[in-house]
Amino acid sequence: MTAPINASLPTVNARIHPRGGLDILSRAEVARLADASSGGMHDLLRRCALAVLTSGSTSDDPRAAQELYPDFDIQVHQQDRGVRIDLQHAPAMAFVDGEIIRGVAELLAAVVRDLAYRAIELGVEGGRDLDSSSGITDAVFGLLRNAHALYPGEPNLVVCWGGHSISREEYLYTKEVGYELGLRGLDICTGCGPGAMKGPMKGATIAHAKQRKRRMRYIGVTEPGIIAAESPNPIVNHLVIMPDIEKRLEAFIRLGHGIVVFPGGVGTAEEILYLLGILLREENASVPFPLVFSGPTSSAPYFEQIDKFIRLTLGDAATRRYEIITGNPTAVARRMANGVRKVREHRLDQRDSFFFNWSINVPLEFQRPFVPTHEAMAALDLHHGRKPHELAADLRRAFSGIVAGNVKEDSMRRIEEHGVFEIHGDPEIMASLDALLRAFVEQRRMKIAGDYKPCYRVVA
Amino acid sequence: MTAPINASLPTVNARIHPRGGLDILSRAEVARLADASSGGMHDLLRRCALAVLTSGSTSDDPRAAQELYPDFDIQVHQQDRGVRIDLQHAPAMAFVDGEIIRGVAELLAAVVRDLAYRAIELGVEGGRDLDSSSGITDAVFGLLRNAHALYPGEPNLVVCWGGHSISREEYLYTKEVGYELGLRGLDICTGCGPGAMKGPMKGATIAHAKQRKRRMRYIGVTEPGIIAAESPNPIVNHLVIMPDIEKRLEAFIRLGHGIVVFPGGVGTAEEILYLLGILLREENASVPFPLVFSGPTSSAPYFEQIDKFIRLTLGDAATRRYEIITGNPTAVARRMANGVRKVREHRLDQRDSFFFNWSINVPLEFQRPFVPTHEAMAALDLHHGRKPHELAADLRRAFSGIVAGNVKEDSMRRIEEHGVFEIHGDPEIMASLDALLRAFVEQRRMKIAGDYKPCYRVVA
Amino acid sequence: MTAPINASLPTVNARIHPRGGLDILSRAEVARLADASSGGMHDLLRRCALAVLTSGSTSDDPRAAQELYPDFDIQVHQQDRGVRIDLQHAPAMAFVDGEIIRGVAELLAAVVRDLAYRAIELGVEGGRDLDSSSGITDAVFGLLRNAHALYPGEPNLVVCWGGHSISREEYLYTKEVGYELGLRGLDICTGCGPGAMKGPMKGATIAHAKQRKRRMRYIGVTEPGIIAAESPNPIVNHLVIMPDIEKRLEAFIRLGHGIVVFPGGVGTAEEILYLLGILLREENASVPFPLVFSGPTSSAPYFEQIDKFIRLTLGDAATRRYEIITGNPTAVARRMANGVRKVREHRLDQRDSFFFNWSINVPLEFQRPFVPTHEAMAALDLHHGRKPHELAADLRRAFSGIVAGNVKEDSMRRIEEHGVFEIHGDPEIMASLDALLRAFVEQRRMKIAGDYKPCYRVVA
Amino acid sequence: MTAPINASLPTVNARIHPRGGLDILSRAEVARLADASSGGMHDLLRRCALAVLTSGSTSDDPRAAQELYPDFDIQVHQQDRGVRIDLQHAPAMAFVDGEIIRGVAELLAAVVRDLAYRAIELGVEGGRDLDSSSGITDAVFGLLRNAHALYPGEPNLVVCWGGHSISREEYLYTKEVGYELGLRGLDICTGCGPGAMKGPMKGATIAHAKQRKRRMRYIGVTEPGIIAAESPNPIVNHLVIMPDIEKRLEAFIRLGHGIVVFPGGVGTAEEILYLLGILLREENASVPFPLVFSGPTSSAPYFEQIDKFIRLTLGDAATRRYEIITGNPTAVARRMANGVRKVREHRLDQRDSFFFNWSINVPLEFQRPFVPTHEAMAALDLHHGRKPHELAADLRRAFSGIVAGNVKEDSMRRIEEHGVFEIHGDPEIMASLDALLRAFVEQRRMKIAGDYKPCYRVVA
Repeated sequence: MTAPINASLPTVNARIHPRGGLDILSRAEVARLADASSGGMHDLLRRCALAVLTSGSTSDDPRAAQELYPDFDIQVHQQDRGVRIDLQHAPAMAFVDGEIIRGVAELLAAVVRDLAYRAIELGVEGGRDLDSSSGITDAVFGLLRNAHALYPGEPNLVVCWGGHSISREEYLYTKEVGYELGLRGLDICTGCGPGAMKGPMKGATIAHAKQRKRRMRYIGVTEPGIIAAESPNPIVNHLVIMPDIEKRLEAFIRLGHGIVVFPGGVGTAEEILYLLGILLREENASVPFPLVFSGPTSSAPYFEQIDKFIRLTLGDAATRRYEIITGNPTAVARRMANGVRKVREHRLDQRDSFFFNWSINVPLEFQRPFVPTHEAMAALDLHHGRKPHELAADLRRAFSGIVAGNVKEDSMRRIEEHGVFEIHGDPEIMASLDALLRAFVEQRRMKIAGDYKPCYRVVA
Repeated sequence: MTAPINASLPTVNARIHPRGGLDILSRAEVARLADASSGGMHDLLRRCALAVLTSGSTSDDPRAAQELYPDFDIQVHQQDRGVRIDLQHAPAMAFVDGEIIRGVAELLAAVVRDLAYRAIELGVEGGRDLDSSSGITDAVFGLLRNAHALYPGEPNLVVCWGGHSISREEYLYTKEVGYELGLRGLDICTGCGPGAMKGPMKGATIAHAKQRKRRMRYIGVTEPGIIAAESPNPIVNHLVIMPDIEKRLEAFIRLGHGIVVFPGGVGTAEEILYLLGILLREENASVPFPLVFSGPTSSAPYFEQIDKFIRLTLGDAATRRYEIITGNPTAVARRMANGVRKVREHRLDQRDSFFFNWSINVPLEFQRPFVPTHEAMAALDLHHGRKPHELAADLRRAFSGIVAGNVKEDSMRRIEEHGVFEIHGDPEIMASLDALLRAFVEQRRMKIAGDYKPCYRVVA
Repeated sequence: MTAPINASLPTVNARIHPRGGLDILSRAEVARLADASSGGMHDLLRRCALAVLTSGSTSDDPRAAQELYPDFDIQVHQQDRGVRIDLQHAPAMAFVDGEIIRGVAELLAAVVRDLAYRAIELGVEGGRDLDSSSGITDAVFGLLRNAHALYPGEPNLVVCWGGHSISREEYLYTKEVGYELGLRGLDICTGCGPGAMKGPMKGATIAHAKQRKRRMRYIGVTEPGIIAAESPNPIVNHLVIMPDIEKRLEAFIRLGHGIVVFPGGVGTAEEILYLLGILLREENASVPFPLVFSGPTSSAPYFEQIDKFIRLTLGDAATRRYEIITGNPTAVARRMANGVRKVREHRLDQRDSFFFNWSINVPLEFQRPFVPTHEAMAALDLHHGRKPHELAADLRRAFSGIVAGNVKEDSMRRIEEHGVFEIHGDPEIMASLDALLRAFVEQRRMKIAGDYKPCYRVVA
Repeated sequence: MTAPINASLPTVNARIHPRGGLDILSRAEVARLADASSGGMHDLLRRCALAVLTSGSTSDDPRAAQELYPDFDIQVHQQDRGVRIDLQHAPAMAFVDGEIIRGVAELLAAVVRDLAYRAIELGVEGGRDLDSSSGITDAVFGLLRNAHALYPGEPNLVVCWGGHSISREEYLYTKEVGYELGLRGLDICTGCGPGAMKGPMKGATIAHAKQRKRRMRYIGVTEPGIIAAESPNPIVNHLVIMPDIEKRLEAFIRLGHGIVVFPGGVGTAEEILYLLGILLREENASVPFPLVFSGPTSSAPYFEQIDKFIRLTLGDAATRRYEIITGNPTAVARRMANGVRKVREHRLDQRDSFFFNWSINVPLEFQRPFVPTHEAMAALDLHHGRKPHELAADLRRAFSGIVAGNVKEDSMRRIEEHGVFEIHGDPEIMASLDALLRAFVEQRRMKIAGDYKPCYRVVA
């Protein structure tokens, strides 16, 4: 995608008749779907659809696709026989000789399905309780089941986290890890953007082909604010759009039987803090959760810095929850395969389901959507002396705010208007945070293209 | 089943882990399911489960199974991994060398699923509108979809109606018709009891095997009051328990692409009046609906009498909606195959779905549950001069009341207490109705075993 | 099929493009196939094809179908893309609204396939050794594999033997046994005619549907002389035409993991003598082979007579190889299920294949085709003092000759020319044989229709 | 594989129970297979098996694997239940945590299967006519069918030819072409080594995943002399080992519905000359055969040189049979998709099979194995004035000899003993040939590693 902004890129008009969950709807449902898609949700639908249709693009600028396809539009039409999706001026890159790529059509149907679920089931009329912890967990479950992301087979799902903007060496490494995981029959779940979210799926695809695996799952879990910046790769065969970043994070830990963290930037740091904050709770002390930080040999210093930051903020105890393995994809895959076996035994013992981790305790403070306003960011309480999981919750929010300031439209606009976020805390923590963030900038982990202009200021 | 009542029949205790729709439930859903099954719904669940477990029994006495298996009980237990069904003192006939027959296990899961749907989705909290016509149709749709009875393939579903208590000659004829339908690739839907509801499925099973058909559908649609008297045959691979007789009737005409009516008693008469009442509405004048009355050559007089009764009550116009074919299974099947082709074209024209007949207009008077109290039966208005479809609606209710008086526990008890129903109307209609009912009695179509003692009195 | 002989029955002309084994042929193979089918093998092909196309007919007169469809013809044409089968004046009963029943089309392809195999692989050029015992066994293996009748799953194949001309009570009993076998997951193999060869398959079809079995095998093993008299039912989904009766018998015992024998006539007696003759050999003493003689309660005297005849001719030891169970289909099925489990263990122990019984020793005297000329029949040596398996071999030939005299065209013609066969032996054996044969005649087991005129004379 | 020769690489001992074609064998076949594999064919089996087990290795030195795994051995053992393959000191790279990669196990079974076919069917006893043109074509057909490489679906198989030793830029280009072919639903067939034989399969795997293609075919066609130097990638899901280079070439053109030629060395030149020699025959004038030469933009000069050489030797007419497209993978894929459509129409017209190109005429001179002795090479007649297809045949042999001299053990040894091959012909042709070969050397297309020492001398 080297075309200059505003250039007229080739586009296509098309009609899609989606299947699989959208094929047997009642007339009332189709009507509500058409309503939702034309009302307040239309812009959201348009942006998510465009992200899916430019899948494979390497830009992480959420406005780029909008500017490249200014005339793109999508309508969901009611037909008694079901739903019809009409695309106007859609990116030609999603089509092959006039036919939409089937994987892209599936992702498009997933977008409509998930936004409809959100409008209908999680809307006012749905009558869901989204204020209690168990109500939120139920909503996460409902979304995942509706997306066919839960299936009652043996545990084998490894979540891969890591940056969308990583070096070629790191990318190839994530592919190799995916390949080794795939050779061991493991399926992959990621945040479904480029970089560390694409590499493991590609590697696993080749390995699954070699192992003649039949039912491969490449699950991508995203959210509306991030999808525009991180287009799902069409290898993804189960796409889920969660309503917000917190439900997305909960989805990862309820779905996955283990997690590999590759090098990344603030988003990855947010994910690490979220997970450790939860695992450090007493209630979760006995819940097995294989967690490996990994990258090529050259990424050893990167993980040392992360490790140091965790020790400083959450204490040494936190480091017992993960293992750092560099330069050894086979070891990572073996560690995961063993870990998943232990998870399996634990679920059997606890009579917990294989497809959803009900046992792990996620408190409300990790579930409530955090809106990174300037006030909210300034109010974060990053001081020593707090309980590790509480400090972790606020640190997670700090990183979350910076991700938003970097790639989410709303926050970018707010910062353009009101200046950068200010983050307060203990000098020691602030210094360490500052060092970490600077390192991310220097290593070009913040953004794929262009110079990075920080959206925050650390105030000791 | 020739064992004397109260004899101790062999029983089995068992645990079932159901699949297919009951395998991915949230903890909250499992809890509600366990609640529902232990509360007010437990007796209903127990009776339906017993019906399924004595499937193949030829008794139509709803109390017989209860008396034969007095200690039978069923509990639905919550396990985090899903649902577990515990059976105590269950009929041994549902088991083979200690293993439950898989088809029976599927039917059992269907019972739990449909009662749960009713308790959860159609209950107070579900917030469904069950007072409007479209709200009821939506509920019918929801139940059928939840039961996987809707599927987005080519139209090919023939509904077969007819008596549960028919002669051997008639039974063999229904088998032959099912065989000829099956040879033409048509699937079968019935009320899933014995007699005319079993024959077509058996015939189609053999024909489908000869035609090497892969995806066969044998849909049984029943309701709680009738299931105990008409045990579903385990050839049924999609069982749906509708909440009441009116939703069951609506399910038949929304699902089916054509209907064959075999000889039967009052239940069959109810079905005929229901369907004709709807087809005679102006709104449905252009809706194609293949409808054939058929039986062996010897049943010609039977259908002549039905025909005469329809002409007298609904007028000659009504007879243009059906065709009578006797002694020719091949002709019936050809007529259906052609009719279904026309239905297909009409749906395409109208952009209506293949899997649910949205176009046909069913007015609220045909949808509202009719409870056959003595007052309600006495209040029926069976006079000439009413619009055909209104008269049809009341005639349908009259037959419905007699069915209830014959085989449904509640009504049987009421009649034991208060005496037989009285039915009022024009002398001519009353005379014709009386003749029809007497013929049913003489031909032993009212009940399978024992002498028939009428539950009604016709008053001119 | 009650039409008078020579009436003009409805016929159809059709072109069939067979699949499954006949779809990827070389040009040379197609040419040889076309050659074979037009040369000396044409009449054989025509007769077998007609048998398949009149499948379901209840006549056992090999000439009946020929006379009913005098103008029927079949040609196998070469098309570069594969084989095309052209039918002229084919029985309309094999078609539904102009389309051939798919199961019949498969059987037709099987006929062509097996005759081609015989012409090409077992012909002069094939270079097969058909004179040695192991060479013949290899030919049997080759034919079965080519017919996809061998498959590498768990042992579960029960062979059902019994008469084509049995009473309705006996027929219903065979259906019930098939049903009980099917409930236990067992597949069925028979000689694929009417009566005891059709009942078990029909019963199993219903049971397999109830158990939701996916991969059902209904194997029919026949031979050219018998197929015309015993049309395969199209429930048969694997038809194999063995070149002669001896290879057909060997196929049964190499394929089956157990055998149920229902009441029958001389053909059934031939099968029993064949099997016992083999099982009585010392080499086979340790080979497990579940064998049950069964029928309705009323057939007890029949089996007593068989039992007595076996004791008299082969000695009491022979009776240890079988069990007689009457009036209890469930017991038969349980006995088979247990027996098959033991066969499984034995095969694992011996590292023998599950799909072909290599261990059982079949000597050349049981393999060499027996042509029942008047001389050969007269030369049979039915005297006491011979080794049991040798006597069994000659008794088998005696029954085989009578079957041929009853229903095979060649032999029927020979008898019309030269008078009935004479059978010699010890007076006691002759008396017992005579009594047995007379009983068959009285019980109408020899022929379906008309009076039976014996084709033999027992000479003490 | 950077380990020094003779280093002790990790090895594994294992037992494989192959399936799919090797699972239902007769005892005689298993015995012959065990015989063949232990007798004269054992060394061949050992070498081919090692090639498969080192699949993914990038060496093209046929002796390298032998030296790296000096103790490797393979035995085929008879078990009554089937075949068992025992591996000793097998390369650990084919295993994951002690389990063989399933794709590798399939390739191993394919090796055994094809060598067995060769020993049994094409051996002395098989009675095949391998001297006539049609007899050889039949053998090619038999081998392909036995390998399940023929299947009766729509034409969609593109053969990709090109060098095993190509630049990274060229490799990535072949991947992109494979990707574009895969997006259009086309399957891939190559010679199954590294470089241009691996790239298209990898690209197609990703595209097929995106298009949710179910039944992907990645066919690798090799021969014993070349397999050791060009290990099949386990993405290959149908491996066929043809007995010699000429049958391998015939397999490509009978199987493929179109061919893309990527840059390569002498092997690729051999393939081009073979194909053009055949297409230039009058008999094949009307046979459509889409043929594209393609590479990245930088390969334009390479194809110009090839084009010039073809014009000089075969005349301008030859160039009408191919198209050169550089730097445009999409255009290549579109050209192929269109070409395959035309092939489809032609086959329908000619009633030729879709799965095997019977129409194309391959004369005996292109089928007879050419053994590149010094005499045979010296006897080639490379002069103007010969018919183009005759000259093409000899030019093909010249290139074939050089390939052998480069990578086949036998020829390498012969050259070590007797010096380089001498090739004679017209000065103009010789000069052009010399220039072409020199360019191959300079572009490092002859060998992957080390300096290239020519095995030939061009003598004008």
